[in-house]
Amino acid sequence: MAATEQDPTGGPGLAELDRMKAFSDGVFAIVITLLVLELRVPSYEPGGLLPALLHEGSAYLAFVVSFVYVGVLWLNHHALLRLLRGTTPALNWINLAILFGVVIIPFPTAVLAAAFTEHGDRYDRQVAVGLYALSAALMSLPWLVVFGYLRRRPEVRAVGIDHAYVRAQTRRPVTGLILYGLAGLLGWLVDPVVGLIAIMVMIAYHAVTSEGIRRRRRPPARGPS
Amino acid sequence: MAATEQDPTGGPGLAELDRMKAFSDGVFAIVITLLVLELRVPSYEPGGLLPALLHEGSAYLAFVVSFVYVGVLWLNHHALLRLLRGTTPALNWINLAILFGVVIIPFPTAVLAAAFTEHGDRYDRQVAVGLYALSAALMSLPWLVVFGYLRRRPEVRAVGIDHAYVRAQTRRPVTGLILYGLAGLLGWLVDPVVGLIAIMVMIAYHAVTSEGIRRRRRPPARGPS
Amino acid sequence: MAATEQDPTGGPGLAELDRMKAFSDGVFAIVITLLVLELRVPSYEPGGLLPALLHEGSAYLAFVVSFVYVGVLWLNHHALLRLLRGTTPALNWINLAILFGVVIIPFPTAVLAAAFTEHGDRYDRQVAVGLYALSAALMSLPWLVVFGYLRRRPEVRAVGIDHAYVRAQTRRPVTGLILYGLAGLLGWLVDPVVGLIAIMVMIAYHAVTSEGIRRRRRPPARGPS
Amino acid sequence: MAATEQDPTGGPGLAELDRMKAFSDGVFAIVITLLVLELRVPSYEPGGLLPALLHEGSAYLAFVVSFVYVGVLWLNHHALLRLLRGTTPALNWINLAILFGVVIIPFPTAVLAAAFTEHGDRYDRQVAVGLYALSAALMSLPWLVVFGYLRRRPEVRAVGIDHAYVRAQTRRPVTGLILYGLAGLLGWLVDPVVGLIAIMVMIAYHAVTSEGIRRRRRPPARGPS
Repeated sequence: MAATEQDPTGGPGLAELDRMKAFSDGVFAIVITLLVLELRVPSYEPGGLLPALLHEGSAYLAFVVSFVYVGVLWLNHHALLRLLRGTTPALNWINLAILFGVVIIPFPTAVLAAAFTEHGDRYDRQVAVGLYALSAALMSLPWLVVFGYLRRRPEVRAVGIDHAYVRAQTRRPVTGLILYGLAGLLGWLVDPVVGLIAIMVMIAYHAVTSEGIRRRRRPPARGPS
Repeated sequence: MAATEQDPTGGPGLAELDRMKAFSDGVFAIVITLLVLELRVPSYEPGGLLPALLHEGSAYLAFVVSFVYVGVLWLNHHALLRLLRGTTPALNWINLAILFGVVIIPFPTAVLAAAFTEHGDRYDRQVAVGLYALSAALMSLPWLVVFGYLRRRPEVRAVGIDHAYVRAQTRRPVTGLILYGLAGLLGWLVDPVVGLIAIMVMIAYHAVTSEGIRRRRRPPARGPS
Repeated sequence: MAATEQDPTGGPGLAELDRMKAFSDGVFAIVITLLVLELRVPSYEPGGLLPALLHEGSAYLAFVVSFVYVGVLWLNHHALLRLLRGTTPALNWINLAILFGVVIIPFPTAVLAAAFTEHGDRYDRQVAVGLYALSAALMSLPWLVVFGYLRRRPEVRAVGIDHAYVRAQTRRPVTGLILYGLAGLLGWLVDPVVGLIAIMVMIAYHAVTSEGIRRRRRPPARGPS
Repeated sequence: MAATEQDPTGGPGLAELDRMKAFSDGVFAIVITLLVLELRVPSYEPGGLLPALLHEGSAYLAFVVSFVYVGVLWLNHHALLRLLRGTTPALNWINLAILFGVVIIPFPTAVLAAAFTEHGDRYDRQVAVGLYALSAALMSLPWLVVFGYLRRRPEVRAVGIDHAYVRAQTRRPVTGLILYGLAGLLGWLVDPVVGLIAIMVMIAYHAVTSEGIRRRRRPPARGPS
């Protein structure tokens, strides 16, 4: 944090990692908070507040799903940065690509919600599910890149993170890429609702694995106070 | 803060707690600042600025109340994180649930303000007070969960925080759950204005207890400089 | 920053001050960035972009003034937090009141800009200058309170900050309170434009004193590298 | 970070630099995230989602370009702050001027996108390219100032940063100032599209040099774990 921890002529290091964390946390905090801007007080005639609120139900559901999704992405990003000892210019760029995926997530979610509630016919829903699957694929790509980079560059890995551990992590974006693609195909060829359910299953998968990978490790295990 | 403080294979620890703080502070800072977006320059005919501003009075009052409420929640969150030595995946999820309650607070506040000023009749005001009480209950739940978790997991508690202290903290969300529920019932069965006053009393209660719990402790008590 | 730096049962301390800084910096960063939302691409007929941009000139000037003002407030807040060793519940509340003044600043600025460009007559401009002076008074009050608090509580002052130094700082909010009041009266009784100029002089005064107080101190004075 | 690291009577130092970093990162995080507010779900008739999305294509391209540009500016700012040992009042003001350039970047980008897609004729595009070149010149100026300041003030430079290194950095804003100016002239005198391409080349130049300067240094080069 202090300037003396930096290695200004020798490339980025720990202090750089702190700034990457601060910047990333800022982006996550803003994205998860901006979602609330979509929650608007409905206009209504006197006596009509309750039905007006219920009519907006799908917008509220989309808000909750988006909030959970950004939360899951934050937990995954958290777990990623714990693997790093420092950062490099390449990692800064990969991180920007990861944040790009985070920043756009409200958009395909909103398109999906709109297509399934008011505007869309069956073809629109296929397009919306396809757009969502495409966005999810774009979001998985930089995660693939970052784990590949960590496999080739042991010097940026944190103490105790070995090659096998990093390779195990690679399974998640690969699973994401394949299954989001399948969800998109299912939504297009079979039924948009099937694709939608497959996408929700994928969000739950990423939530569970961000937990699951940690659970297999030993707990902090310090004595009771 | 530095990578060497982390325990990357042994689960989250202090560095993780720093990121949780940074993310939470970001969310609080954004929510409290986004409130100002509701303050708009009123449109007016030449010479009509003063009455136009006065007509918006209730929106300005709602802004002040929301600002104080988010500030109170920040102080309570502050006091919560001081109880922790580190964080765990479960605590990360509970914290996301707490932040969910923070992020939505402008919405029921806006519904309430609208129902009591321009749009609503008595039934709408009952609905608005009910929605607010429901939101407050949702907000109290993760606080109940977190204190229960801290009672069962002494290893995540900060040094000097014992079981009795944590149990004493549990009283606040329990009080909140019961009294916000009563405020909702009062607003529905007796009079919406009574419910509204009860809600404002609850906000004041949370403001006073976030202070009061600290006041009972000894002051920093370092010598004068 | 680490949990071990905290004094969880003995009241807030250094770690608390870090969170207050992080929260305040977040609020300042968001306010200064949200200002850009007022810069909109004007609508125009083909060939009409340049006059359309020029017509928005006063909105761009208001943006620049607001940016400088929030920047000045950030520098003043910076200088304030350097006086503190730790924080207390009372200081947390005073800081929230200071941030309240920061968060609302875009609103009276926008009212002023609107009254002086399109909507207003002379009476509206008097109201707008009066609103601005009232807001500035509200903003000066918590600064008065915080310096009074620091005079009475030497144990929260940073090392090397004595009573006389804190008292000298008190002069700025007192000057602000009196001169912003005078600016409001001048704007109301003499001419709104005179009040407006007096307000801009006050912003410049706060910019210069946030610098000036530092300049009187010795420079970092480490050897050349 | 802790109060003891500060030198409260002797001018700003390391802790001050941390707050400048936190504030700057907050501004960058908010600007890069606010860009997504321009991505709106298009309105469409049933069955018309795909063409409606494709019609918005240029807005999506402008979003991607703006995201990359802000990311590039963040990396450049990153590299700048690594040159500093501490901060001074003058550096705080220069940093505010740099952030001013960052905060306004979405505006000329949006004017440019609008002029090249729907609203504009050839004259409007000349104006838009000119506005963009002018903004870029304004953005380069504080970078020129900051490197000049660092040349004259060795005591604020981080360990290992010498006069020659700082002077080498000056080349980038000078190049930016000249070439953005040329891009504006090309866009005005020859063809707006030529100016637009020249601007995109400049963004790529700043992206490559923020990397390139780092690549010439030795890698972290710690042993494999």
